[in-house]
Amino acid sequence: MTPASPEELLEEARHGSRAALARLITYVESRGDLHLATAALVYARATPWVVGLTGAPGAGKSTLTDQLITTALAHGSFDGQGAFSNVAVLCVDPSSPFSGGALLGDRFRMQGHATDPRVYIRSMATRGNLGGLSLAVPDAVRVVGAAGFEFAILETVGVGQMEIDVASTADTTVVVLNPGWGDAVQAEKAGILEVADVFVINKADRAGTSATRRDLERMMDMGPVTPWRPPIVETVASDGRGVEDLWTVLADHRRFLAGAEHEARRRRRAALELDRVISAMLGERVRSGEGATRYAEQVDALVAGRTDPYRAARTLLFEA
Amino acid sequence: MTPASPEELLEEARHGSRAALARLITYVESRGDLHLATAALVYARATPWVVGLTGAPGAGKSTLTDQLITTALAHGSFDGQGAFSNVAVLCVDPSSPFSGGALLGDRFRMQGHATDPRVYIRSMATRGNLGGLSLAVPDAVRVVGAAGFEFAILETVGVGQMEIDVASTADTTVVVLNPGWGDAVQAEKAGILEVADVFVINKADRAGTSATRRDLERMMDMGPVTPWRPPIVETVASDGRGVEDLWTVLADHRRFLAGAEHEARRRRRAALELDRVISAMLGERVRSGEGATRYAEQVDALVAGRTDPYRAARTLLFEA
Repeated sequence: MTPASPEELLEEARHGSRAALARLITYVESRGDLHLATAALVYARATPWVVGLTGAPGAGKSTLTDQLITTALAHGSFDGQGAFSNVAVLCVDPSSPFSGGALLGDRFRMQGHATDPRVYIRSMATRGNLGGLSLAVPDAVRVVGAAGFEFAILETVGVGQMEIDVASTADTTVVVLNPGWGDAVQAEKAGILEVADVFVINKADRAGTSATRRDLERMMDMGPVTPWRPPIVETVASDGRGVEDLWTVLADHRRFLAGAEHEARRRRRAALELDRVISAMLGERVRSGEGATRYAEQVDALVAGRTDPYRAARTLLFEA
Repeated sequence: MTPASPEELLEEARHGSRAALARLITYVESRGDLHLATAALVYARATPWVVGLTGAPGAGKSTLTDQLITTALAHGSFDGQGAFSNVAVLCVDPSSPFSGGALLGDRFRMQGHATDPRVYIRSMATRGNLGGLSLAVPDAVRVVGAAGFEFAILETVGVGQMEIDVASTADTTVVVLNPGWGDAVQAEKAGILEVADVFVINKADRAGTSATRRDLERMMDMGPVTPWRPPIVETVASDGRGVEDLWTVLADHRRFLAGAEHEARRRRRAALELDRVISAMLGERVRSGEGATRYAEQVDALVAGRTDPYRAARTLLFEA
């Protein structure tokens, strides 16, 4: 069976085929010609508005995503254009080997939406492909955009480098915390501060909410002054409390970005995506297949003092 | 005046000329043919044992460096080989525009050693050269090694990415903290944990020492189990308390590395240095001079949806 062409699949996806859409995302998760052909197709199309949700496992991201889907479909007040007609959710778990049809445990909480024809939910995982997700996720966002989705939620687990990479794909990045977070996950703060456009303190009916809010405020006070200071929203996602407030803040941020900031941000993101692809391509050229042998030879030579890093790099890059 | 050749300068440096040594380091701080010629020369020579000291400004790194110089020259118990006959100190301040002869404020504390013919102290700074220090510092370490220094102290300010890059040049990285650090610089913890081989709580005569120790222990408990768990040493560098303990721990770590770990670490470092040079060379090729215009054109095309990142990357890399 020859694989269906990305053009055919995109046409089917635009007419509502979830199978075709899933297949296109599988194409961008793989590396190869089908990936390249899919990218060539979707980068020319419309991009969805992307809200990223990140935070530690158990923070309540999936429940919050569930609520945001409902809110977006019911009264998407963004730009006063009424509700969104559809929502795509991409769930990214860099630590999981499962992808595609294999729903992660948390995904079951979104089952209420899973049968809604306006909602598309997809898990993405690394498949052991180093750096693969950093490339595949922005591409998958473009795929759902090209298939006609106006709004996408990008849910990632954790706040490591991979999650920060993935967060940079979002227009608005929401960092989801819980009360008491200040004590528990200090080590993760540095990365969090940089990527957050909005902080959510979820499970805000628990003790420690105001301490966590103070902690976040203090952290922001220590950082640089920026034109957008991330608001802090308190939610109890399990019963929907605060979700309207979150939606208002997301709309505010979207309006903020639509100003002068927007073009600069789009350019920065394009440059970032380009840089990542450049690194990946070079990594492949230098380190995979025959390149891997040549790379190891140069490292040997370096360790033995027979070359220096500049000569070795020139040899690898320009004497292929 | 034609610049002196790296060969001539190295010969002079090996016979004790500090001016020649300083000139060679200036060569590796610059980018160009003299840098390449110097690298070709020094990577074939002996490397010194490198202890890196990193930590926030004011933590007492310079005073500690001062004490370590004295200890190394008096009774360098490493490998039971007696004292080191000389010590080179490279002070790296990524935030400072000053380099070379311009001694940073803190450097004056080391003045007692500045006139000692066995000691060479040099400040290095970025000179506005993005990524320049990550390349220049490992090269400068090789320069002092080639000039006959057996032991080098690499002192860096702060714990940002640049400092982490620089720390990876050290054989043993010492992270210097102060009591109460737990509250003040939480945001920096993530990076610290990864680079530390040894923790020093300096100014340990102040309140909060045991809390800081507990905080570090807990942080390590949360991290992965590794064959070397970073010891925590308490010092009062201003009067020399704890410096002997630190020296013992440094010797322990050196012996630890001399085992099976050593070869693997050398290869990892060689690969890391090679990767950095590869990135820098490509960065130059893609983003500087004529490349910058072509890069901007591709970003324009991406933002306008006229290309995708894969096509853009191929154009930049392989159609030069």
